[in-house]
Amino acid sequence: MTATAMLAAEAGAAAGEGGTGDEGRLIVHGQDRPGVVAGVSAALAGAGANIVSLDQHSTDPAGGRFFQRTVFRIPDLAVVRPELESVLRERIGDVLGLQWRLVEAARPKRVAIFASKTDHCLLDLLWRQRRGELNMSVAMVISNHSDLAEEVRRFDVPYFHVPVKNGDKKATEQEHLRLLQGNVDLVILARYMQIISGDFIRDVGAPLINIHHSFLPAFVGAGPYQKAKDRGVKLVGATAHYVTEDLDEGPIIEQDVVRVSHADTVRDLMRRGADVERMVLARAVGWHCEDRVLRDGNSTIVFAS
Amino acid sequence: MTATAMLAAEAGAAAGEGGTGDEGRLIVHGQDRPGVVAGVSAALAGAGANIVSLDQHSTDPAGGRFFQRTVFRIPDLAVVRPELESVLRERIGDVLGLQWRLVEAARPKRVAIFASKTDHCLLDLLWRQRRGELNMSVAMVISNHSDLAEEVRRFDVPYFHVPVKNGDKKATEQEHLRLLQGNVDLVILARYMQIISGDFIRDVGAPLINIHHSFLPAFVGAGPYQKAKDRGVKLVGATAHYVTEDLDEGPIIEQDVVRVSHADTVRDLMRRGADVERMVLARAVGWHCEDRVLRDGNSTIVFAS
Amino acid sequence: MTATAMLAAEAGAAAGEGGTGDEGRLIVHGQDRPGVVAGVSAALAGAGANIVSLDQHSTDPAGGRFFQRTVFRIPDLAVVRPELESVLRERIGDVLGLQWRLVEAARPKRVAIFASKTDHCLLDLLWRQRRGELNMSVAMVISNHSDLAEEVRRFDVPYFHVPVKNGDKKATEQEHLRLLQGNVDLVILARYMQIISGDFIRDVGAPLINIHHSFLPAFVGAGPYQKAKDRGVKLVGATAHYVTEDLDEGPIIEQDVVRVSHADTVRDLMRRGADVERMVLARAVGWHCEDRVLRDGNSTIVFAS
Amino acid sequence: MTATAMLAAEAGAAAGEGGTGDEGRLIVHGQDRPGVVAGVSAALAGAGANIVSLDQHSTDPAGGRFFQRTVFRIPDLAVVRPELESVLRERIGDVLGLQWRLVEAARPKRVAIFASKTDHCLLDLLWRQRRGELNMSVAMVISNHSDLAEEVRRFDVPYFHVPVKNGDKKATEQEHLRLLQGNVDLVILARYMQIISGDFIRDVGAPLINIHHSFLPAFVGAGPYQKAKDRGVKLVGATAHYVTEDLDEGPIIEQDVVRVSHADTVRDLMRRGADVERMVLARAVGWHCEDRVLRDGNSTIVFAS
Repeated sequence: MTATAMLAAEAGAAAGEGGTGDEGRLIVHGQDRPGVVAGVSAALAGAGANIVSLDQHSTDPAGGRFFQRTVFRIPDLAVVRPELESVLRERIGDVLGLQWRLVEAARPKRVAIFASKTDHCLLDLLWRQRRGELNMSVAMVISNHSDLAEEVRRFDVPYFHVPVKNGDKKATEQEHLRLLQGNVDLVILARYMQIISGDFIRDVGAPLINIHHSFLPAFVGAGPYQKAKDRGVKLVGATAHYVTEDLDEGPIIEQDVVRVSHADTVRDLMRRGADVERMVLARAVGWHCEDRVLRDGNSTIVFAS
Repeated sequence: MTATAMLAAEAGAAAGEGGTGDEGRLIVHGQDRPGVVAGVSAALAGAGANIVSLDQHSTDPAGGRFFQRTVFRIPDLAVVRPELESVLRERIGDVLGLQWRLVEAARPKRVAIFASKTDHCLLDLLWRQRRGELNMSVAMVISNHSDLAEEVRRFDVPYFHVPVKNGDKKATEQEHLRLLQGNVDLVILARYMQIISGDFIRDVGAPLINIHHSFLPAFVGAGPYQKAKDRGVKLVGATAHYVTEDLDEGPIIEQDVVRVSHADTVRDLMRRGADVERMVLARAVGWHCEDRVLRDGNSTIVFAS
Repeated sequence: MTATAMLAAEAGAAAGEGGTGDEGRLIVHGQDRPGVVAGVSAALAGAGANIVSLDQHSTDPAGGRFFQRTVFRIPDLAVVRPELESVLRERIGDVLGLQWRLVEAARPKRVAIFASKTDHCLLDLLWRQRRGELNMSVAMVISNHSDLAEEVRRFDVPYFHVPVKNGDKKATEQEHLRLLQGNVDLVILARYMQIISGDFIRDVGAPLINIHHSFLPAFVGAGPYQKAKDRGVKLVGATAHYVTEDLDEGPIIEQDVVRVSHADTVRDLMRRGADVERMVLARAVGWHCEDRVLRDGNSTIVFAS
Repeated sequence: MTATAMLAAEAGAAAGEGGTGDEGRLIVHGQDRPGVVAGVSAALAGAGANIVSLDQHSTDPAGGRFFQRTVFRIPDLAVVRPELESVLRERIGDVLGLQWRLVEAARPKRVAIFASKTDHCLLDLLWRQRRGELNMSVAMVISNHSDLAEEVRRFDVPYFHVPVKNGDKKATEQEHLRLLQGNVDLVILARYMQIISGDFIRDVGAPLINIHHSFLPAFVGAGPYQKAKDRGVKLVGATAHYVTEDLDEGPIIEQDVVRVSHADTVRDLMRRGADVERMVLARAVGWHCEDRVLRDGNSTIVFAS
C-alpha cells in the first residue's frame, strides 16, 4: 500500500461520513410549517435511525421554504432501505407534504470532469480525490483537446478526447451524452472553454458545477482581467455555481477572493485568479458530494462549516 | 424619532430574534445518545412550541457530548413559561438526562463593560448597540480611569470610575461586585488593563468575555507587538475568549487577523491590531447575546453563520 | 490633556510622516525612460534633500508611464520651498520632461465629508481622525439631512445642512460650491445618497472619494443586497474609488469583502456590508491623505503596505 | 509543444523578470545615511544600466538599517558583469559603505526540496515550477522515505532516497551535504519531518526555507491540532520562514490563515492547514527566487505586492 493510498484510507476512516454502510443522509425541502423539524426527526427515530447531525434552514418561519439535511445511522442501510423509504414516504411525503431524498453515504458520487487545455482546476480535483479529501469517484475526464490525456491517465482515470468536428456542436454534445447518461451523478466544468447548450443541461441527467472568475465590480465580456487591470481592481476572485441556461448566472455555491495590486501584471492577475479558482471549485465540489448544497430557486443553502 | 433610533427600531423588527415576546431559545447539552434530537424536538412540539431554527453538534456520535440550540415560538412565552419549563424538566431533564436552559428572546442580556484608557473596543460596542446590531442593554461602564466618562455618558450609559486605591485590588473588586451582582448577565473586558482575580470570576455571577491580541506564532509576555516586529510577522490578530482563572487561556469564541508588512511600524501594527480587536469583540459579544456560544470544557461550540 | 488627545499626539509623533516641518513628498509622473529614477533622486539630493523612502512603478519599462512617490527631509521645508521648486522645475520638469507635485507633510489635507442619514462611514472617519490615525483636518460635514448634526458637532466639526429645495439640484450644488471652493483639498462621499453632477466635479477644485457596495458578481440597479441574496452570494464587499462623471465607474483605490451565508438576512448583508464599507473608506482616505494614491487614467497606483 | 510547456513559455515571456539576458537585480543593504538611494541609482545609471523597478526600506531614516532591491537592464549582462561589478564595488561598497549582491535574472535559483511522506507541499511546488510560476530549477528531491519517488520522477526531477541508517543522523547529513554542496542555491523543507542540525545549516552553503503550521495562539509541542481543537480555535495557519538553529524561530517570510469551526474534526483542521501550507510555501519560495526577501537580523523585508 503506498503512502498516498494509506492517507486516503485513513482519511476515509476518519471522515465519519461515507466510511460505513450504516450511514445515510436525508435531504428534505418544501413549505415550512409548524412541527416540520420535530416531524422529520420523529419519522427517522420511528424507523430505527439514529440522528448523527442535523442542519435546517427556513427562508421565513412564517410560511417560507424549509430545508433540512439530516445525517443518520441505521444498521445495514442498503438492506433496510426499502422499508425506510416506505416510512419516509408516508410520514414526510404524505403527512408533512415535503419533498425528500435519501442518500447512502457509502456510495460516492460518480463524477465526470470537463476540461480544455488549462490544468489547474482539473489536477487539483484529481489530486484531492486521490488524497481522500473528496467523497467522489472520477468516472471520466472529457476534453475537446488531447493535451492533458497523459496527466489524467496517471491517476487511473479514463480520458475521452471529443473534439468539435467541423463546428458541429450538436454532434459533439450527442457524443458527450452517450458517455455520460446513466454513468455519472455530477458533471464538473473545470475551466472547460465551450458553451453548454440548454438541451445538454436538460438531457444529461445530472447537475453541472462550473467555476467562473469574478471581480468586484464585475466586468462583462471578453478580457475581464485586462478590464480589471484598467480600472485598478484590488481583488480578484472566483465563483463556483450550478449551471443553468443563463450562462454564468446560476445559483452560487462558493466564492472567494485574493488581493492584488498595481504591481501585478494581467498575467499575475490570471495566476492569482487560478489559485482562487481551484480552491473555490474544490470546496464547492466537496460540499456537493456530501449533499451539503441545497438549491432554492436561483439561490443555494450550503450547510458547511 | 431620530434617524439613529429609526435604524435601531427597524433593525429590531427585521432581526427576527429578539423582537417579539413569543420567541424563546432552548439550549441543551449533555451526553449524546440515540434519539436526543428527535426527543428535544418532540418535547417542544408537545408543549405547543413551533421550532424556528435548530443547530446541534455532537463531539462524537458514539458517546460524545451533545449540544443543541433551538429557537422556537410559542404565544405569550413569558406567561406560559412555568408550564413549558415543567414539560422540559420532565422530558429533557428526567427522560433524556440532559442539561437545559430557557431564554426569552425579548429580554436582552444586561451587560457591563470594563475599560481603561483605550476607547476603540468600548466605543464600537456602544455605537453598535445604539445602531441595533447587538441584542443587549448596557447597564454600566466601569473604569479605573475617568478619561472616557464623557464619551460614554453621551450614549446615556452610566460610567462608574473605580480607581485602584493604594494598590488595594481586593477592595476595588469588592466595589465592582457591589455594582455588578444581580445587575448584569455578562461582563465584557474591552481592553481593561487590570488583572481579574479568580475570586472575582467566581463571585460575579456572570460570564466574562475578554479581547486579546494574537499573533502567529504567539509572543508571550510584555511588548508582543515589538516582538512580532522583530521576527517579521506578516499577520496580526485578535482573540475573543471567555475569562477563566488561567489568564488569556479561556475558551475561544472568535478570532481574526489582518495582514501587515515590514513597512508597518510597531505603532501601525497596534492600530491594525485595534481594528481587528473591535471587530472580533463585537462578533463574539453579538453571538453570546443571542446564546449562540456554548461552552464545552475549554472549547466552544459557536452556532453562527 | 485627555487620553484621546494624548493618543493623537503620540500617534502624530510616531507616525514619522506628517509630524515635522522638515518632511516633504514629491510626486512625479510621466513618460518612462532610462534614467528617470536616478534623475529624480539626484535632483532631490542636489537640492540638499535626504530621501526617506521611495516608491516607483512603471506600467512598462519600455515606453510605459512612470510614477514615483518620494518622501524626503530638508530643514525648514516651508522656508526653502521656492528654491527647491526652482530646482525641481528645471531638473524634473525641463530635463526629464515629467510632471511633478510637492507636498509639505506638515500640512494635513483639508477635508469635507458629505453624508445623508447613515452614520457608520461618517462617524468612523471622525473617530479615526480624532484618534490621530488620519493625516487630515475635517473642515466641515455637509448633509441633505439634519439628523447627524449633533453627533458631528461633538467632534468640534461644523455641520452644514443643505437640503435640496423644490428639487432644485443646481441651486443646492451652487451652495455646496460656495462652502467648498478654496476651503478643502478633498471631498469624501460617506454614503451620501445624492447624484453628483459633472459640473460639480469639475468646479469643486478637489478630488472626490466615494464608497460603494460591491458584489461578486456585481448586481446593477436598485436593491443590490436583495439581488445578491436571491442568487446565494457568499461574499459582500465595498469599493472606494475616485468620483468621475461615469457614476461608480471611477478609478478604484481600495476594496475588501466579508463572508456571508444563506443564514444571513438581507439586513444582515447590509450590516456586514456597512462594516466593510467603513474599513475600506478609512483605508482609502488615509492613503490619499498621505499622497500614496496616484491616478493613472481610470486606474490607480497605490503605494501602501 | 504541450499545452503545459506552452503555458510555461508564455509565462516566462510575460514574467518580465527572468526572461532575458539583459536583466539584473542589485540587492543592497547597510547603514542608512543621507544620499544612499540617489547614490545607488546614480551608480547604476553611471554604469549604463537602466532601472526597471526599485524598492527600498529603511528601519529608521535617522541611522537605521537600509535595504534596496533594484531591477535593471543592461545589454548582455553576463558579458559586462565584471565591469559592472567593478563600478559597484567602488561606488556602493567603497564610497557608500554598503553591502551589495548582483543577480542575473536569467539564471534561475537551483533548488533542492526535502520531503518525507506528505506530498501536498512537494507536489504543489513541482506543479507550479512546471507551469512557469516559480523562477527556479529543481535540481533534486531528497527524502528519508521512498514513497514519493515515482510521483517526483514524473516531473523529470531526480529523487534521492536517503534513509536514516541505525539512527546515525550524522552520516545521513554527510550524505545530504555531498549531494547538495555546490549544486543548489536554496533548500526547501517541504514538510520534512526530521530535525536539521546547526552543523548542516552552516555547511550546506545555501539558505533553507521551512513551512510550519501556525495557530493563534500558538500551541507548543506535539499534537498542536488536537490542542487547537481543545481550545476551540477558529483559525489555522501556516508560516514560511528561514531556518536557523533555533528550531521554528527563524525570520518569517510569509503567513496566512484559514477559518475553521467546531464542526471541523482534528483531521479537517489538518486538511485545511495543508491547503494553507502549500499556498504560503509557494509564495515564500517564489519571492525568494526573485530576490524579494531580504533578511534583517531575525526579521525580513519582503518587497512583494
